[in-house]
Amino acid sequence: MLIPLIASGFFFAQQKDDSLVFSKISGQILNQGEAYEELRYLSKNIGHRLSGSAAYEKATQWAFNQLKQAGADKVWLQPVKVPVWVRGKESLHIKTANGQWQSVNMLSLGNSEGTNGKDLTGDIILVKTIEEFNALPESTVKGKIVFFNNSFNQSYITTFLGYRDAGIYRRATASMVAKKGGKAVIIRSLSSATDDAPHTGAMKYEDGIEKIPAIAIGPKGAENLAKLLQSQKVTAKLNSNCGMKEEVMSNSVIGEITGKKDQKVIVVGGHLDSWDVGEGAQDDGAGIVQSIEVLRTFKKLGLNNNHTIRAVLFANEENGTRGGLKYAEENGAKEKHIFALESDAGGYSPIGFFMDVKPEQKTDVKNWMKLFAPYNVHNIADSEGGTDIAPLKKYGVSTAGLMPDSQRYFDLHHSASDTFEAVNRRELLLGASVMTQLIYMVDKYWE
Amino acid sequence: MLIPLIASGFFFAQQKDDSLVFSKISGQILNQGEAYEELRYLSKNIGHRLSGSAAYEKATQWAFNQLKQAGADKVWLQPVKVPVWVRGKESLHIKTANGQWQSVNMLSLGNSEGTNGKDLTGDIILVKTIEEFNALPESTVKGKIVFFNNSFNQSYITTFLGYRDAGIYRRATASMVAKKGGKAVIIRSLSSATDDAPHTGAMKYEDGIEKIPAIAIGPKGAENLAKLLQSQKVTAKLNSNCGMKEEVMSNSVIGEITGKKDQKVIVVGGHLDSWDVGEGAQDDGAGIVQSIEVLRTFKKLGLNNNHTIRAVLFANEENGTRGGLKYAEENGAKEKHIFALESDAGGYSPIGFFMDVKPEQKTDVKNWMKLFAPYNVHNIADSEGGTDIAPLKKYGVSTAGLMPDSQRYFDLHHSASDTFEAVNRRELLLGASVMTQLIYMVDKYWE
Repeated sequence: MLIPLIASGFFFAQQKDDSLVFSKISGQILNQGEAYEELRYLSKNIGHRLSGSAAYEKATQWAFNQLKQAGADKVWLQPVKVPVWVRGKESLHIKTANGQWQSVNMLSLGNSEGTNGKDLTGDIILVKTIEEFNALPESTVKGKIVFFNNSFNQSYITTFLGYRDAGIYRRATASMVAKKGGKAVIIRSLSSATDDAPHTGAMKYEDGIEKIPAIAIGPKGAENLAKLLQSQKVTAKLNSNCGMKEEVMSNSVIGEITGKKDQKVIVVGGHLDSWDVGEGAQDDGAGIVQSIEVLRTFKKLGLNNNHTIRAVLFANEENGTRGGLKYAEENGAKEKHIFALESDAGGYSPIGFFMDVKPEQKTDVKNWMKLFAPYNVHNIADSEGGTDIAPLKKYGVSTAGLMPDSQRYFDLHHSASDTFEAVNRRELLLGASVMTQLIYMVDKYWE
Repeated sequence: MLIPLIASGFFFAQQKDDSLVFSKISGQILNQGEAYEELRYLSKNIGHRLSGSAAYEKATQWAFNQLKQAGADKVWLQPVKVPVWVRGKESLHIKTANGQWQSVNMLSLGNSEGTNGKDLTGDIILVKTIEEFNALPESTVKGKIVFFNNSFNQSYITTFLGYRDAGIYRRATASMVAKKGGKAVIIRSLSSATDDAPHTGAMKYEDGIEKIPAIAIGPKGAENLAKLLQSQKVTAKLNSNCGMKEEVMSNSVIGEITGKKDQKVIVVGGHLDSWDVGEGAQDDGAGIVQSIEVLRTFKKLGLNNNHTIRAVLFANEENGTRGGLKYAEENGAKEKHIFALESDAGGYSPIGFFMDVKPEQKTDVKNWMKLFAPYNVHNIADSEGGTDIAPLKKYGVSTAGLMPDSQRYFDLHHSASDTFEAVNRRELLLGASVMTQLIYMVDKYWE
């Protein structure tokens, strides 16, 4: 029984060393981290930055400079063609039995076509679920505006599951309604809040189906509309100018610090684009500044990485994933990637990792959880690492995502409420710290 | 080896049953919980409520009614004499080499004497630590205003530890300075934020030492003042009207649901008073509405408690603990108490429990952690359960505290930033859910 004892003694000595490095990392970031002030600049001076917008271009220049200042040995832009969707002016009014029009807070869903600035008027019919809609005959739907009042399932502890369940209402209902001759679709926002903020996000039309307008209203507006529809006819008047434009060239921004041992790559990243409301602070300004902080911390602490550690700030996650696809195509195929980590679930207190790795790597991470426990990081979920790094799976790359506490994310995700003020300094920095710690372990122990 | 197998089979079957009840509890609270709207009322319609204030009396009436509505079988007030401290108008101005007076955001510390409305003027001397102050000769301190620019230690993952370390600067520096002939003390607020909000909180004079004014300034004001003092003389002009008044009679509010088996008591509580700035939403409105939610949920779900479950909404935690002392004296001595749980660390996502229980009870709670893991509750810390229930220890009562994520608490604790807007619905309700789950287990398994 001597060998296991030696082995475990060695194991514990290692963990003690690693625990000291963990503590150095968190001390550095919690005290001297710059991610919070960086995020203030990105949120307040650049603001929201949808693919193809002038603000997105401004963000790439800013990110390029931030990566240089963080100490990256090499920084470059990765060109990529992106779709362009423009919102323009938009409004929704409803009229009830009293004959008065009243305005309702709304946002067109991303990628949706608008009404070309003309009033689209129609009576609203209410359904709660897709099942309920499917049971309706075409004659009931024809010429109508269908309102899906599906509420966010609050029962899940992990709100990502509530979001997952509700996703189909945003993505797919427009074509369902169009197939039955409906004029437009209104959805209750994919929101865990009880306020009136509408949330946008990507929708998709089925090929060959008429592209009818799709909009979202806030939880309060939805409650109100549903209540009205129980007792009376409600007519909607929608006017919007949104639609797809010509694709344009844009860029992901990439910076790296060279490994002392080899040129195998470890990716850490988030997406630089955001929806065109709020400031894109939690989604995903947080992941951007955290990824830059990882590089900065490796440099500042002289952690002497074995492999190349590369921050990839992806273009166009929100309405195309073109940045992620391009990176996988150009780099995933040509360079050996050990691992990719994404932060795209908000800069809240970290509680674990989403993991899509090899079984032996999962065993490693489970062993490492002792080191993470003092940082309140306890959870490992078998799940995709992140939208932008998922295309790397094709090349056999192990991926993971930072799992933050999820209670607040879907209160503000894709809405005007996603501002810098919704981000807490310590939470954001603790996320960056845990990301740096994981990258440190991967760099040290994985090949 | 048959017996252990049966025992563990039994154990797992039990855990499965309990896990179903856990899920019922969280489903009920996350979907139908009323704590968030209750807290909105308390914060917005009653607001801050320092002991002895009219608002505190209003809060007791409100709490009495809420406990009744929540389904308590019996609700009563527990009279208790409380100290009364009144702030009044106050200001701090500083003058530098340019001769201009400028205003600095400030709050007198709770229990501090003021300047009786007269200007107290003096030159400021800067120290960073108490050690540094102790090294100063009396001649340096005499007639001066001492500024302690001790910053909150951000290195701790648990911010309670940063608060603990900084506590002595708020509580004890006034008498230290008075002993050396100083006129007043200014402290850098016990704040983890980087903003300019000053934080109040209790200070204490040593017996027989002159009671000089003690005030706090915000982190930004402190940085600014420290910078000025590096290069020039800075004179302060303090004017304040705060001070202690006559003690008055007040009340804790208590409600309970009767046990089906016996009259042994399980306490769940928080404190109803708050400091006199902000709205006392996180400290400790959250604990109040969570405690009421525990009772409501036992009633709503018909959980049929064995023992009496009693919500105690304590008076005067902030500047006297008189409510906690009174309850222990009146009830701790006369009734058998199985357990007391307090929520007084903010209504953030729950991550564990502070535990001050018997060793065999700690083993139980460790076994229960499997049930709590799906709620992201993983931590057990050996620590006092809470200020209000600590006096029960004298009567051998096991105590515990809800441990929420602590990253944001000391950004707003005891400051004008502690408002309803800083509370998240799901976080607050998840805390109430975990409290109900723990009380359910204690009620079922402990005698």
